[in-house]
Amino acid sequence: MSIGRLAILGVGLIGGSLALALKKQGAVERVVGWSRREATLRKALELGVIDRAEPDPGDAIRGAEIAVLGVPVGAMESLFRQLAPHLGKETVITDVGSTKGSVVEAARCVFGELPPTFVPGHPIAGIERSGVEAAFAELYQGRRVILTPLPESDPDAVSRVRAMWEQCGAEVVEMEVVHHDEVLAATSHLPHMLAYSLVDTLARMDESEEIFQYAAGGFRDFTRIASSDPRMWHDICLANRDALSAMLERFRADLAQLSDAIRKGDSDFLMQTFLRAKRARDRFCG
Amino acid sequence: MSIGRLAILGVGLIGGSLALALKKQGAVERVVGWSRREATLRKALELGVIDRAEPDPGDAIRGAEIAVLGVPVGAMESLFRQLAPHLGKETVITDVGSTKGSVVEAARCVFGELPPTFVPGHPIAGIERSGVEAAFAELYQGRRVILTPLPESDPDAVSRVRAMWEQCGAEVVEMEVVHHDEVLAATSHLPHMLAYSLVDTLARMDESEEIFQYAAGGFRDFTRIASSDPRMWHDICLANRDALSAMLERFRADLAQLSDAIRKGDSDFLMQTFLRAKRARDRFCG
Repeated sequence: MSIGRLAILGVGLIGGSLALALKKQGAVERVVGWSRREATLRKALELGVIDRAEPDPGDAIRGAEIAVLGVPVGAMESLFRQLAPHLGKETVITDVGSTKGSVVEAARCVFGELPPTFVPGHPIAGIERSGVEAAFAELYQGRRVILTPLPESDPDAVSRVRAMWEQCGAEVVEMEVVHHDEVLAATSHLPHMLAYSLVDTLARMDESEEIFQYAAGGFRDFTRIASSDPRMWHDICLANRDALSAMLERFRADLAQLSDAIRKGDSDFLMQTFLRAKRARDRFCG
Repeated sequence: MSIGRLAILGVGLIGGSLALALKKQGAVERVVGWSRREATLRKALELGVIDRAEPDPGDAIRGAEIAVLGVPVGAMESLFRQLAPHLGKETVITDVGSTKGSVVEAARCVFGELPPTFVPGHPIAGIERSGVEAAFAELYQGRRVILTPLPESDPDAVSRVRAMWEQCGAEVVEMEVVHHDEVLAATSHLPHMLAYSLVDTLARMDESEEIFQYAAGGFRDFTRIASSDPRMWHDICLANRDALSAMLERFRADLAQLSDAIRKGDSDFLMQTFLRAKRARDRFCG
């Protein structure tokens, strides 16, 4: 399978790496890019991530076989609105947003009836760096990409999006929209909130300068995800508010129990919790 | 400086690596080891970590210039009790426990008046692996070791413990006992509680099998510290209960605020918190 023309709307780490991976495989003829910022487009051209820059998203998707929406999830609705008048039946639309319910909702707002060419997607391949400068062709090797096809999605469109990601070395799985948002709230959004909150708690302490000096290896690993793009995480929090709030509530109840056990010196509770967690982590994360 | 005889009481990762580092530097003539478990002692002999195994801790410290206590903090008092009748003025005692208040308290319980040869210490060099098999000579290269000398501590004893760690490539700093326990509660004990609690929350969900499948790179790093030794962390929680409870309370209040902001969709609060945390992390952890 080769894609004649691919449009990347929002050329950052995720969209840029997709373009590079497909180019490396010879699986795309021409990549057209659009970005809100002109500097990003220039950089993407310079780096050979895209072959042509378009200052207007409507122009970027003209004649594209696949259009990949790579803007922060909070900007999806406005991008759909700009694309709507230009969207032909020949163009499959997919996105790489970290939340799926909000993106589907945005599309529904703009299009009314969802276009059969729309296949929501989410590559699970985030790293802390962001921006097109960080893009590299191997990002998706062995990573999972979740597609959440809708009842309205054309099976042929789904196949094409699946094939695109498989050519980048990814393993593609399908999931319902709501379930995707719950799973990601648990495995990605909640941990990011804890990392941000912990770093912020320490940073606001009087002795923060000194405290961070004693932050050793474990702490660095633990808080690395707090270096992620604040704007992206702001958008994710608002977009996946319900599922994330439910997970936060569950976690906070569990942490309250653990805190109680520490305060009371409940030896059994502590030992059981730490053993169970260590077993689960060692089993699943190897 | 060369140590004639060094006693390691509790030959695990920390004590074992210390022995290996000093041997590599030619800074110790003879290392005598004691461990609660015979298999550990055999292994330590086999690996060349210790030169002689002693089944009794009192025998192990006889004639030692420095005795290093490397048992879990919950076992310190009982070890002090076993050592007390055999302790001569020529032996400097130090420990490697992750909490200092509890170790000093244990010594006070056993000795009444604290011996001037006692210099509490804590190398900030934990990794998730544990046990003498994981020991290696380079563990302390460039790491910090905190000493918390007491008013009773003989300055000469402090110098000898400092010199020992410096020969392993560590940077030695001094701190008050209470302050040590607060700093460690913030940078190490609290993050470990969050990692354990998060993994446990997810492991107890109905869809835990599936959820862990989607745990990507960030999650692995974030939860790595939940693979640490449960017994050790059980002991630390009980030993540093007050400082850790205070940190947990502070963190939980901040997390409650963040949860509120997410539920209410408070865009400004989210953006400010994430930006502040990212700046602090990038500044301090590079």
